[in-house]
Amino acid sequence: MSLIETPYLLFLGDAPDALAAKVARGIRDWRPEHALGQFRLPGCNADMGLPDMSLAEARAAGCKTLVIGVANRGGVIAQSWKKVLVQALEEGFDLASGLHNLLRDEPELVAVAEATGRALHDVRIPEVEYPIANGVKRTGKRCLAVGTDCSVGKMYTALCMERAMREAGMKATFRATGQTGILITGDGVPLDAVVADFMAGAVEWLTPDNDPDHWDLIEGQGSLFHPSYSGVTMALIHGGQPDALILSHEPTRTHMRGLPGYGLPSLEALRDLVLPIARVVNPAVKVTGISINTQGLDEAAARACLAEAEDRTGLPATDPYRFGAEKLVAALAAL
Amino acid sequence: MSLIETPYLLFLGDAPDALAAKVARGIRDWRPEHALGQFRLPGCNADMGLPDMSLAEARAAGCKTLVIGVANRGGVIAQSWKKVLVQALEEGFDLASGLHNLLRDEPELVAVAEATGRALHDVRIPEVEYPIANGVKRTGKRCLAVGTDCSVGKMYTALCMERAMREAGMKATFRATGQTGILITGDGVPLDAVVADFMAGAVEWLTPDNDPDHWDLIEGQGSLFHPSYSGVTMALIHGGQPDALILSHEPTRTHMRGLPGYGLPSLEALRDLVLPIARVVNPAVKVTGISINTQGLDEAAARACLAEAEDRTGLPATDPYRFGAEKLVAALAAL
Repeated sequence: MSLIETPYLLFLGDAPDALAAKVARGIRDWRPEHALGQFRLPGCNADMGLPDMSLAEARAAGCKTLVIGVANRGGVIAQSWKKVLVQALEEGFDLASGLHNLLRDEPELVAVAEATGRALHDVRIPEVEYPIANGVKRTGKRCLAVGTDCSVGKMYTALCMERAMREAGMKATFRATGQTGILITGDGVPLDAVVADFMAGAVEWLTPDNDPDHWDLIEGQGSLFHPSYSGVTMALIHGGQPDALILSHEPTRTHMRGLPGYGLPSLEALRDLVLPIARVVNPAVKVTGISINTQGLDEAAARACLAEAEDRTGLPATDPYRFGAEKLVAALAAL
Repeated sequence: MSLIETPYLLFLGDAPDALAAKVARGIRDWRPEHALGQFRLPGCNADMGLPDMSLAEARAAGCKTLVIGVANRGGVIAQSWKKVLVQALEEGFDLASGLHNLLRDEPELVAVAEATGRALHDVRIPEVEYPIANGVKRTGKRCLAVGTDCSVGKMYTALCMERAMREAGMKATFRATGQTGILITGDGVPLDAVVADFMAGAVEWLTPDNDPDHWDLIEGQGSLFHPSYSGVTMALIHGGQPDALILSHEPTRTHMRGLPGYGLPSLEALRDLVLPIARVVNPAVKVTGISINTQGLDEAAARACLAEAEDRTGLPATDPYRFGAEKLVAALAAL
């Protein structure tokens, strides 16, 4: 992925609700310094609380890239969107998108981008020829969240930890491995779109040698217990060479995401499976904490759930988005 | 991969030695009924013991596809090869190749194939849009060889077992997941070239529902202990849903292939890591045997090595290529 130029104007289109604008929200939450304004079409029901800007106003404010911060319906880039996107290119914006249907597959956008010399960033597609992993130990420290399931809060865990570590004066870098993460940071590896032989090599490429006291917070993907995506998780562990693992969990999930026949593993089962796998590349790896996404629980239930996990496992447990990531960060600092 | 039409004429080119013609040897050894003849250029030092045929003779004998059975040097399809390939298309052959440099990237071959209506099969590249794995249990039985390292004899193990099972009147199908295997059988999934999100789904696609007493013998890839390719191995296990696992090993290896810093795991360590992983998709999975590639040992040492492995693990152990696959097959039949 070539670096996406910041700051951004966030395109919310005609988002039917706030959920559809998940990408925009991620950018606003985690890189507010990149999110100078929002652009909304008639009918938009999402609001990031940012100044509404015309394209000209956003250019004047310094925005370099218009980021599509909303999922589209039906897998087609609507004509009403395309009009704005063309105009944005003409006014000097690059475009960045994580949509399944690619900007580069729209002949009109390609033609205008070529004519104006602007870039189209489709972050779903790798733009780099990644190497095959060599397994060589790298300098610096790495932390990876692994989940009992997909979509349990691994990205938010890493972003919360990055923020808390920076506030504590530690050296820390979030390393994006998915579309939303790449759009948030402007950089990363779209791991689920990498060809099998190069997955682990892409992760090595993403987390190179660094200062001995620097932590890469690698965005997790999939789950070792999710048969559809476990190979991606495996490549993240073996390419990432984590020193520290965070167990991530969503306590209200009744079965693995999209797989009604598969129950969720316990935190202990995840710990017992991931450790021997991770020791292949780093014998010193430790599970240092637990991150539980408690958004489905009221505060008392959330605190009880965390206390119970701590009692059972002896590991610090928190919902880093709700109650702060300090416990997880302290465990890294103590390593 | 669309089916490659058989029988084959095996193109050995100017192979410097027998090793360079590994693909041709695999076809001759495992699908002799497909290998009607060989085509050699001046300077060829490989010989499959098949009739040397001109293109016209091979067509008259019924050959449908010219298979490039030799690795090329320097990643370029030589002019001397191209002349034969063009002529083969003109005389009515399809072409099949597992070379890194693709037939489809040679404008001359593409033009002639289009003009003559012939097919170019580049088996390194998936031609199918594989689904995302759904984890649903399939009917029929599946066996997968997993290795302490890459290139320890997993494909030969599966092919030996297929042959022995068919000779014993059992229903068995070798399922190719790599270039050589695909060229041998004319069908399969080039798993190392599949995009990450679709790896496990490709394996599900490759081994569909079957008779309750039918065995798929899935070609293994990589190793859970090889950081460059472990994600591929993981997808094979979770997409393949094996009922039986064979541990494959090469006893003279001093470190993981291509990774001087990584020692080989023991058979016990492999067993202990693979079983909990495989149980995610099939709680009844068992390790049923051990396949040791003893080509680096004399016969006494080979037999001693196998006896020692049996004593240590309590599992039947053989070199199926050297001493027969009957022990491994008997263990499947007893399941």
